[in-house]
Amino acid sequence: MIIVLKKDRDESQYKHLLEWIKSLGLKTDISEGENSLVMGLVGDTSRVDIDLVRSLDIVEDVKRIQEPFKMANRKFHPEDTVVKIGDVEIGGGTFAYIAGPCSVESEAQIIEVAAAVKAAGAKILRGGAFKPRTSPYAFQGLRDEGIRLLLRAKEETGLPIVTEIMSEVHIDLFRDLDIVQIGARDMQNFELLKAVGKMGKPVVLKRGIAATVQEWLMSAEYLMSEGCHDVILCERGIRTYETSTRNTLDISAVPVLKELTHLPVIVDPSHASGVARYVKPLSKAAAAAGADGVMIEVHNDPPRALCDGAQSLRPEQFRDVVTEVNEVLKAVGKRV
Amino acid sequence: MIIVLKKDRDESQYKHLLEWIKSLGLKTDISEGENSLVMGLVGDTSRVDIDLVRSLDIVEDVKRIQEPFKMANRKFHPEDTVVKIGDVEIGGGTFAYIAGPCSVESEAQIIEVAAAVKAAGAKILRGGAFKPRTSPYAFQGLRDEGIRLLLRAKEETGLPIVTEIMSEVHIDLFRDLDIVQIGARDMQNFELLKAVGKMGKPVVLKRGIAATVQEWLMSAEYLMSEGCHDVILCERGIRTYETSTRNTLDISAVPVLKELTHLPVIVDPSHASGVARYVKPLSKAAAAAGADGVMIEVHNDPPRALCDGAQSLRPEQFRDVVTEVNEVLKAVGKRV
Amino acid sequence: MIIVLKKDRDESQYKHLLEWIKSLGLKTDISEGENSLVMGLVGDTSRVDIDLVRSLDIVEDVKRIQEPFKMANRKFHPEDTVVKIGDVEIGGGTFAYIAGPCSVESEAQIIEVAAAVKAAGAKILRGGAFKPRTSPYAFQGLRDEGIRLLLRAKEETGLPIVTEIMSEVHIDLFRDLDIVQIGARDMQNFELLKAVGKMGKPVVLKRGIAATVQEWLMSAEYLMSEGCHDVILCERGIRTYETSTRNTLDISAVPVLKELTHLPVIVDPSHASGVARYVKPLSKAAAAAGADGVMIEVHNDPPRALCDGAQSLRPEQFRDVVTEVNEVLKAVGKRV
Amino acid sequence: MIIVLKKDRDESQYKHLLEWIKSLGLKTDISEGENSLVMGLVGDTSRVDIDLVRSLDIVEDVKRIQEPFKMANRKFHPEDTVVKIGDVEIGGGTFAYIAGPCSVESEAQIIEVAAAVKAAGAKILRGGAFKPRTSPYAFQGLRDEGIRLLLRAKEETGLPIVTEIMSEVHIDLFRDLDIVQIGARDMQNFELLKAVGKMGKPVVLKRGIAATVQEWLMSAEYLMSEGCHDVILCERGIRTYETSTRNTLDISAVPVLKELTHLPVIVDPSHASGVARYVKPLSKAAAAAGADGVMIEVHNDPPRALCDGAQSLRPEQFRDVVTEVNEVLKAVGKRV
Repeated sequence: MIIVLKKDRDESQYKHLLEWIKSLGLKTDISEGENSLVMGLVGDTSRVDIDLVRSLDIVEDVKRIQEPFKMANRKFHPEDTVVKIGDVEIGGGTFAYIAGPCSVESEAQIIEVAAAVKAAGAKILRGGAFKPRTSPYAFQGLRDEGIRLLLRAKEETGLPIVTEIMSEVHIDLFRDLDIVQIGARDMQNFELLKAVGKMGKPVVLKRGIAATVQEWLMSAEYLMSEGCHDVILCERGIRTYETSTRNTLDISAVPVLKELTHLPVIVDPSHASGVARYVKPLSKAAAAAGADGVMIEVHNDPPRALCDGAQSLRPEQFRDVVTEVNEVLKAVGKRV
Repeated sequence: MIIVLKKDRDESQYKHLLEWIKSLGLKTDISEGENSLVMGLVGDTSRVDIDLVRSLDIVEDVKRIQEPFKMANRKFHPEDTVVKIGDVEIGGGTFAYIAGPCSVESEAQIIEVAAAVKAAGAKILRGGAFKPRTSPYAFQGLRDEGIRLLLRAKEETGLPIVTEIMSEVHIDLFRDLDIVQIGARDMQNFELLKAVGKMGKPVVLKRGIAATVQEWLMSAEYLMSEGCHDVILCERGIRTYETSTRNTLDISAVPVLKELTHLPVIVDPSHASGVARYVKPLSKAAAAAGADGVMIEVHNDPPRALCDGAQSLRPEQFRDVVTEVNEVLKAVGKRV
Repeated sequence: MIIVLKKDRDESQYKHLLEWIKSLGLKTDISEGENSLVMGLVGDTSRVDIDLVRSLDIVEDVKRIQEPFKMANRKFHPEDTVVKIGDVEIGGGTFAYIAGPCSVESEAQIIEVAAAVKAAGAKILRGGAFKPRTSPYAFQGLRDEGIRLLLRAKEETGLPIVTEIMSEVHIDLFRDLDIVQIGARDMQNFELLKAVGKMGKPVVLKRGIAATVQEWLMSAEYLMSEGCHDVILCERGIRTYETSTRNTLDISAVPVLKELTHLPVIVDPSHASGVARYVKPLSKAAAAAGADGVMIEVHNDPPRALCDGAQSLRPEQFRDVVTEVNEVLKAVGKRV
Repeated sequence: MIIVLKKDRDESQYKHLLEWIKSLGLKTDISEGENSLVMGLVGDTSRVDIDLVRSLDIVEDVKRIQEPFKMANRKFHPEDTVVKIGDVEIGGGTFAYIAGPCSVESEAQIIEVAAAVKAAGAKILRGGAFKPRTSPYAFQGLRDEGIRLLLRAKEETGLPIVTEIMSEVHIDLFRDLDIVQIGARDMQNFELLKAVGKMGKPVVLKRGIAATVQEWLMSAEYLMSEGCHDVILCERGIRTYETSTRNTLDISAVPVLKELTHLPVIVDPSHASGVARYVKPLSKAAAAAGADGVMIEVHNDPPRALCDGAQSLRPEQFRDVVTEVNEVLKAVGKRV
């Protein structure tokens, strides 16, 4: 961390600052310029509150040099993390297809979709039991019953399950599931992150709708600092002024994350675009950019789906996506 | 709701749609144009999923005419809601000063600040016990102990208390507090909204960092549909590309909300700007634009505060803000 | 400027960099840390390309400390600039009402509106002759003829005129006008800025729809470096994800600019919101936040106006805005 | 266009509106609902100002159904436009590599880079003669001399040239060039669009930094309505809150545009990311998403380049990008 101090600074405040820095176990390295004094902090600055330092009257500016995330940081863990769920691997040269309906609606529906996406190439089943909905009047998911039906679908097809958790209160319901998902709206639900981090399960951590890459990695750090090492980051579009897609898929986040972290990165083109016919080109782009997988909404009868129908493919369309993405994967040297 | 259907539509899908609309208890009003058919839905369309309708192959476009919020809607409740906390009123021609530190740090600190802000004109004390922090390594608040200290400050000063809740699990801790705050990061933590809505207490609902006005009102609707009628909306800045302030205060949200809803609207200039010296002009702007109050961070020793120091005023600066804002309030005809 | 260099740096590149810095007439101040070397550049760094420095392999990060604008910088020109147009002053404790129609449509229309806004308190007449329109099929303004009609309105009412220029090619047409406006879409039309800067006239420089405050000041710097000292900055809303207003008025830009620059700052609530009924609260907010004036669209028959009708007030509504804003101005100690 | 009228509307205003619609040569199709009246406009509504209609007191809402662009619209021109520059084709199943330095600096430099990018696979040379720079103190390009040097590079290598125009005043200088570029900052410089549209040359139209897809197509429409049919749309990143890349590449714009328009679409990963090492993954993503080409900054000595060094590749790195992108192109069935 570099602190730029004003030229005409109050000496007692300056001494105060130096003592405070010392009390944090940090050393300083000072260089006097013409109009300002530049102070470098040497040591672990991840606990230093940059906003607090900036607020001091004698401070002109502050800049963090070290990234504030540690366990997620590739600098301290150069090899890719590979998350293993039974036989399925996410990260490290493979590409995972995760597919399923927006919401679990019935036993017949979820088993039918599970079988269909498995046949088309999916390795993991997704499906919403607890559904975050903008309106209190909209369908909120089958909840406990939805979890039960997902486990039935696993029994029938053998596909591991990923589904979203919305509250600490529900943690016991998620014990038999394979992967717990933290949704975009909960990316900074820190109490939930801490509780889920203690579960000992792989977690899909979706990016918040207006989260920076760094904030996202800090949320991964919350999970990791509680003992969860298998965090899968899922880019699902960010909010911008553009309206031709529901959100704007930040495809650059894939190479940016590959550089900053060792954690696997997947892409959700269904929520990013909100339009089923853009899922194929965006999945191919994700594969080409280096993503470790895609999470795609597939429904056996999209126009009848109870939510998010606009972004759901039919199983035969999903099969077509898989076929074309597989061609791209060969071109970029990734295994399915 | 208006549905625009394509000219060359599949007739069986069209019949299917008409039946589904009928099954929702809605009537249709159809008008055939040259290139499309326009269908108006008559009745309560708040349960209709606009994205689902948009996903149908035969649909070209859909537009909602009715606002999807009802209990928060001024159309159905033309008079201003006035929230009463003891002698203090928020909404309906008065202006409320809510002030206090970012975090509760110690008994001495919170009592000293409480007394100072009360003397300067504050009617309600704010202070964080549970603190949402981007980093797991940052100070997370005194938590239970912080709640206890806030109640001590109330005992000493008589000021009602508002503080943020971060999890359903903590609800019992908040029983003796006057107002529960839902923070920006939890604006769409729907399980928390439902649980807090059942508490029977006034709620300050902060706007999510990238929430639209309509999404915000839908979150108010979550609280209201569980029985909470005293929702206070708090504009605290939205995320944009501009970096000269931490967030961008959306001052227009004040008149927009005054038109759409009967709920009181306050402004948090401290979090919106992240810079203590902008709090005064932004508070004056909020008062002039028609806000019902401001929530301001005040600390007895801002540079030493454990969090968010950059946005905290000292008590004497807060007093100065109150003095100047009061002049503006006289000009716009609001009572303090 | 501070340059952070990597620990394991190539020594020949490092020497190369030191020579280049020296060749720019700058001195360096070096401080070796544990993991990096921090170099402060001493001297005028406004010509140093920060992106170029960042691109060097040996560089970890760069931070500018000096603002890159000079002539617009309050540090080097502490007193407010007051722009004088005849008897009218903008900046320095006064507040200016600039009003008029979106487009000049006819001699009768512009003279009628001019007289009406003058009677209501406007000190300067605005009106579009050249109109930037998103569609090539939309009305593009009366152009040369519009300029002629504006000068007729000045003849009749004595009001100075401000109108937008869209091309260097039209500069001669603007010789008799009082203030030249650079529109939001042209804020970074640098060739136009250079040409207009040479005209020797006051300029209203609107903020680009996605311009940062710093980019905006750099565009003012383009004008100033060509000899134009009378630059009036006009905040007119920025593009965000929010759709309840056309753009998002960045009210914080007023105090931010007051700190960074000595140039006057006005606000255009009509374009910022796109909604006539929000013009009054936003004008009051602008006055309370410290703006030096407002620019408001007023039309004698808004629903018939050829463009931007949604944001135009009728003259009697404008009079009402002036009356209420004047109350706020008294409260904040500004003269009209 | 659909107009929703309020239930309690003024009848004389309603008649007035009906007459105005008739005077525009449009027919109406009216359907009375419970709370509102829905009016469909039948005919060519591209000249109707939607904001004007929205401003009427009796209007509740308006929605455009027809896209406002016509010549660029795929509905009226289903086949892909293929732009031909000598032997090079852009659009229609091929993929074009456009490469070269940010700025032309000297004859030796531009000829060396031109030869190097040609050898690596580039079909068109890019290079800046007129440079839009945020600061008036930064290098503004070699201007006329830069154009002359680009033509020298064409003489030497046979590569067609694309370079940016910044003012109508410079049009004569661009007569011998192959493709004229309109930069992001000038996407809505309508006078320049009209003048360049008349030149009879292919145009690369970069997306404005905060332009919607629709606004971008309307700017293409400006060029086309002046006779320019060879418009190449270039996605170059949009401005968002995210700072890990300079701008956010909107990869979804590729499939969105492919649906809406017949014009070719290329991607500029250099400006989109601002970071040379992200150019390869983003170029592969662009190819996979269906783009018709990429425009890449290549410099023979990136760290010494006078501008935008951070985003420039060396020729050997560019060759590597071409090799890997070619693999993706084979996978998606595109010819180079």
